[in-house]
Amino acid sequence: MAEFDGFLPGPRLSRRLLLRSTAVAAGALTLAATVPAPRSSWPDGEGVRIAFLGFTGMTVLDLVGPWQVLRIADGTARLHVLAADSGLIRSDSAMGVEATATLAGTPGADVIVVAGAANPFPALRDRRNIDWLREHGPKARYLTSVCTGSLLLAEAGLLNGVPATTHWAFREELAARGAHLSTERVVRHGNVITAAGVSAGMDMALHLAAALWGQEAAMRAQALIEYAPEPPFAAGHPEQLPPALGAALRESMRTHVAKARHGQPHGL
Amino acid sequence: MAEFDGFLPGPRLSRRLLLRSTAVAAGALTLAATVPAPRSSWPDGEGVRIAFLGFTGMTVLDLVGPWQVLRIADGTARLHVLAADSGLIRSDSAMGVEATATLAGTPGADVIVVAGAANPFPALRDRRNIDWLREHGPKARYLTSVCTGSLLLAEAGLLNGVPATTHWAFREELAARGAHLSTERVVRHGNVITAAGVSAGMDMALHLAAALWGQEAAMRAQALIEYAPEPPFAAGHPEQLPPALGAALRESMRTHVAKARHGQPHGL
Repeated sequence: MAEFDGFLPGPRLSRRLLLRSTAVAAGALTLAATVPAPRSSWPDGEGVRIAFLGFTGMTVLDLVGPWQVLRIADGTARLHVLAADSGLIRSDSAMGVEATATLAGTPGADVIVVAGAANPFPALRDRRNIDWLREHGPKARYLTSVCTGSLLLAEAGLLNGVPATTHWAFREELAARGAHLSTERVVRHGNVITAAGVSAGMDMALHLAAALWGQEAAMRAQALIEYAPEPPFAAGHPEQLPPALGAALRESMRTHVAKARHGQPHGL
Repeated sequence: MAEFDGFLPGPRLSRRLLLRSTAVAAGALTLAATVPAPRSSWPDGEGVRIAFLGFTGMTVLDLVGPWQVLRIADGTARLHVLAADSGLIRSDSAMGVEATATLAGTPGADVIVVAGAANPFPALRDRRNIDWLREHGPKARYLTSVCTGSLLLAEAGLLNGVPATTHWAFREELAARGAHLSTERVVRHGNVITAAGVSAGMDMALHLAAALWGQEAAMRAQALIEYAPEPPFAAGHPEQLPPALGAALRESMRTHVAKARHGQPHGL
C-alpha cells in the first residue's frame, strides 16, 4: 500500500523518513480490519503536529478536505482527528470517521483545524471543545477553521476583533461572537486562517500548506489531488442561483439557523 | 442535530420524509459513540440507493467529496459505504472511515461510485471488488468513479471502448484496461461518469446529482457546500507547475506507478 507521501520528489524525503513512512503504512494495513484504540499522544517524529477538531454532527468534508491536502503536502506532518469522545465521529451526513485521540488525552498542537457543522450549536455548547480551544488555541502556531468551525474559535474568545469568515448562512452568528466579519472565501489575519463553507477548507489548506512548508509543497499537493475545479454550474453562493431558488434557500437556512440555535432538533 | 437535508426548501420534502429524516438523525445520535455493526441491506425508503465502493488504501477525499455532494443534494437518497471487509476502512492518508456494509452482504445499487487510491493495484487484485462490480455494475442506473476508481471499473470489463478519465498519473493504466482514454476532468458516456484525480469527484457528483434529481437540486447542493473554488495557485495539473517542479512530479509518479504495479510496497 502506498501513501501519496511516498511519491513526493526526492529532496524533502530523507531515507529515515522513507523508512518511517513504510512502517506507518505497514501499521495501517494491520489495523485495517479493526478499530484501534485512540492514540493518546502524537506519533513520534519532528513534523508539524496538526490537530483536526471534530465532533458529533460535524460536516465530514470540512475535515477531510484539509486533511487530504495537508497529508499530501508534507510527508512528515503528524495528523490527529481529535474529538471530545473516542470512537467514531458520526457526521451530519451520517458518515462515520475515526477519532484518533480524545481532546482530554491530547496536549496542544502546532496547527489546529476546526471543522464545522450544519448545526454547530451542540458543539458550541460542549464545553470540552471550547475549553480545549481556549487552553491550546493561543499556543498554536496556526489556528484555522472551516465553515462554522470559526464559531467555535470565536466562542472560545479567539477571534475577538479578528477578521474571519464562515458559511454564508452563519455570518450573523460569527459576528455576534466578536469576530470582525469578512465575506471572503479564505481570510488570513496573522496566524489565524478561516474558511467559508465546507468546500472552502481545501482552499484554506493550500494557503496553510504554503505557510507551513512553502509554496512548492502546496502546489505539488494541489497537482496530486488534481485540484483544477470545474463545477458544472455557477452556483457556489445563493446569489448565483436563479433568484427564486436563491431566495428560497436563504429563507430555509434562516429558519434552520434560528431553530437550531434554540435547540430544536433537525431544524424542523 | 441537524442534517443538511433538514433545511432543503419545501416542495421536495414531504411530511413523511421529514419524519423519516428525524428518525435517522435520532438514530445517528444514539450510534455516535459506538461502532455499529455493518448494515447488511439498504435502509428503508424509496430514494436512490448509492453505493460508495471503498477499500484499504483508498484516497479518502475520493469518497467523501461525492458523498457530501450527493447526501446534501437529496434527502431521500440512501447511501452505503461498501467494502470487501467490515469495520474501518484505512485510507491512504491514514484516516479511518466506517464501512457500513460489506460487498458480500449487499445486493446491487442504483448508483455505484468507485473511489480510487494512490496505489490502486491491491484493490485491483482483490477479486471481491472486481467480481462485485462485474455482477452489479451492468445493472446500475449510473456507474461512476473518482480518480483511479475507473481502473477498477475497467478491470471489471465495464469500460471496454468507453470514453473515460482518471488521475493524470494513471492514464496509461486506464487505457491498458480497454477504456477509450479521455483527459477531460469529468467524462459522461451514457450512464457511465468518470472523474479525474481526487478533487474531481465533487465536480462529477454535481453532474450526477443533476442527472438524478435535476439541475436545481445540484445547484442547491453546490451553494450549500459553498463550492465556488478559489485555489490560491494555478497548480491543478503538472503542466501548470513551474517546469522543473512539474517534470520532477511526473517523473516521481512514473516511478511510483511502475513500482506499485509490481507490488512493491509503498512505491519505494
